[in-house]
Amino acid sequence: MSTKRYLITPGPTPIPPEVAAAAAAPMQHHRSPEFRALLLETLVLLQRVFATENDVLLFTGSGTAAMESAVANLLSPGDRVVVASAGNFGERWVKLIGAYGIEPVLVEQPWGESLDPGRIAAAVAEAGTAAVFVTHSETSTGVVHDIEAIAAAVAPTGALLVVDAVSSLGGVELATDAWGVDVVVSGSQKALMSPPGLAFASVSKRARERAEHASLPRYYLDWKRSADSQVKGDTAFTPAVSIVVALRTALDIILDRGPANVWEHNRRLARGARAGVKGLGLGLFSPDDDSAAMVTALLMPEGVDGQECYTVLRDRHGIVLAGGHGPLRGKIMRIGHMGYMNEFDIVTALAGLEMALVELGHTPPVPGGGVAGATALFAAEPVPADG
Amino acid sequence: MSTKRYLITPGPTPIPPEVAAAAAAPMQHHRSPEFRALLLETLVLLQRVFATENDVLLFTGSGTAAMESAVANLLSPGDRVVVASAGNFGERWVKLIGAYGIEPVLVEQPWGESLDPGRIAAAVAEAGTAAVFVTHSETSTGVVHDIEAIAAAVAPTGALLVVDAVSSLGGVELATDAWGVDVVVSGSQKALMSPPGLAFASVSKRARERAEHASLPRYYLDWKRSADSQVKGDTAFTPAVSIVVALRTALDIILDRGPANVWEHNRRLARGARAGVKGLGLGLFSPDDDSAAMVTALLMPEGVDGQECYTVLRDRHGIVLAGGHGPLRGKIMRIGHMGYMNEFDIVTALAGLEMALVELGHTPPVPGGGVAGATALFAAEPVPADG
Repeated sequence: MSTKRYLITPGPTPIPPEVAAAAAAPMQHHRSPEFRALLLETLVLLQRVFATENDVLLFTGSGTAAMESAVANLLSPGDRVVVASAGNFGERWVKLIGAYGIEPVLVEQPWGESLDPGRIAAAVAEAGTAAVFVTHSETSTGVVHDIEAIAAAVAPTGALLVVDAVSSLGGVELATDAWGVDVVVSGSQKALMSPPGLAFASVSKRARERAEHASLPRYYLDWKRSADSQVKGDTAFTPAVSIVVALRTALDIILDRGPANVWEHNRRLARGARAGVKGLGLGLFSPDDDSAAMVTALLMPEGVDGQECYTVLRDRHGIVLAGGHGPLRGKIMRIGHMGYMNEFDIVTALAGLEMALVELGHTPPVPGGGVAGATALFAAEPVPADG
Repeated sequence: MSTKRYLITPGPTPIPPEVAAAAAAPMQHHRSPEFRALLLETLVLLQRVFATENDVLLFTGSGTAAMESAVANLLSPGDRVVVASAGNFGERWVKLIGAYGIEPVLVEQPWGESLDPGRIAAAVAEAGTAAVFVTHSETSTGVVHDIEAIAAAVAPTGALLVVDAVSSLGGVELATDAWGVDVVVSGSQKALMSPPGLAFASVSKRARERAEHASLPRYYLDWKRSADSQVKGDTAFTPAVSIVVALRTALDIILDRGPANVWEHNRRLARGARAGVKGLGLGLFSPDDDSAAMVTALLMPEGVDGQECYTVLRDRHGIVLAGGHGPLRGKIMRIGHMGYMNEFDIVTALAGLEMALVELGHTPPVPGGGVAGATALFAAEPVPADG
């Protein structure tokens, strides 16, 4: 089997060499002036990526820790909340909120569909809804939900809007302040192309005010404790120093390139991936338009099990794609194209897919058709000079 | 000022070069067979360092997250618990438990004293104490509490014993199973000489059973969710992959050397540090015996402010020691000697201290007396061939 590995998943994503090198720099003390300065710079750069003037709070943890921080800091027993869900990560909000003894009102769409702003607003409009929890990029299906429209629909109700942007932030537009999103949570290991281990929450003024009176228990994930420390260039607890240093480097790369250029880069890779999937004669599960910028989900052909294809790709060819979650297990495969990815990662994924399909007894209609589809698209849409 | 940095603190501690290199290896997917195998190996090595056959649960987070996991997984509202505290980290248990609405019974000793097993047992013996929370190495004072004696005293009461070993595990003996400790929590960035970002909790059978009925809310830090994932070589949430890889390398180094040899190495460095402090004509705040193996706390001479000394050392000489917490601020300084440290780190700390003291107007009685004290001790106690 191949000993060379290709990580073409929706996270963790590959780390640029300069980011990996930054993570390996000699350890520094988290209360040294150098680290304080670096942390403060990192928080300012995060605000730019979050498109917010709100505080971005930094936690050492997985993205789920930041999600939990929103639940524990905003809610009190008996609060009425709405969760809008159309996939695995929407369901995580339900489980998280349920773990704190609150039964959310659920506004569901089938996996693979987009959330419906009107239905969400109607559910929220019922008296007393404290907060609405939604997902931005639903990584399990490839759908990027329309947060701008959801925010506009929810705004008149006065409910707080909390967005899980773990797998979208930095990779697709999320105009936190302009759209009026109260809380955005994210993580280091997706579009921010840093090692996993840091999680973030941007918190609006009214979310902070609500947190002052919210009585669910929290200590490690307490927003006020974090905010009070961060004002001094500090963290409430020893942070993952090496990952903060790595993230600082990654944010520089992203912001030097320009967020809008990064978003277009991802959309372009997605267009190439979709052209390649069609060239393989396969169907798309994720939307066939520019909204699906983070993950392309493709349908397995009749008679080929997605998990088997995943395993052949991984164990024989060294290519790690993602399979399907829950009801989609075995039925789809997912190509991640966020973070440190380019055209030839898409080409590799498609070439590997063709080889694996042939090995599993399904010969695509045109030899090389997947790669040909992608390269034709990339050739027709040259990389912009500044992209 | 010096551009060369010396991190001689009780954490984060310096990272061996091979551990730093491991952290910079290409990112791998956390559900790949290679990472699953590495995770399972790491968990087995952690069991050896924890001296336990209990599951060691791994969380991405600071040590405080693992402390909080013990509170949230073991307790229910209205539970009666005891906290034994003689320093800053003992007080953290009080704050953590208080954040969950439980007022612990506090068995305090003055900062710098050892916890009293008899007093703890007497407090616990009052009917219905669910659990006792104590600190192993109280980093704020340099005292390593006698967990063996505390465990023996508490055992007849049937209460669960929870030990914060964040800054001790791997650096000083902690015989989890032999002493009958139910829960030990620790972190990656102290004696385990890995980057900060991982936290651990070893959980005994009866602690696990209690957790099944404990009703405080938790999701990210839920023990059962972690344990159920780890059985499959998995983590419940995306872990700090690069730090797990680093830790795997660090644990190999520690276990190849042998835990008992590492403990003796730390005791020897501590003896050298104490000899050096005396050679500088200064007093010790931490105990003047082999129990104080992790941190040496020294008293500032009359007229010299410890924070000023800390700043001169750091900003002029590039040496980061630790100052005093809380009531000890300005009165003591602390030299960490755990993890990737050797004789010449102690020599550097002592030489720097002498220079800083002179610069602050306090000339020690014998020029070079600090370093002379340490080197005389090290020369008289040669490194064992296998140490």
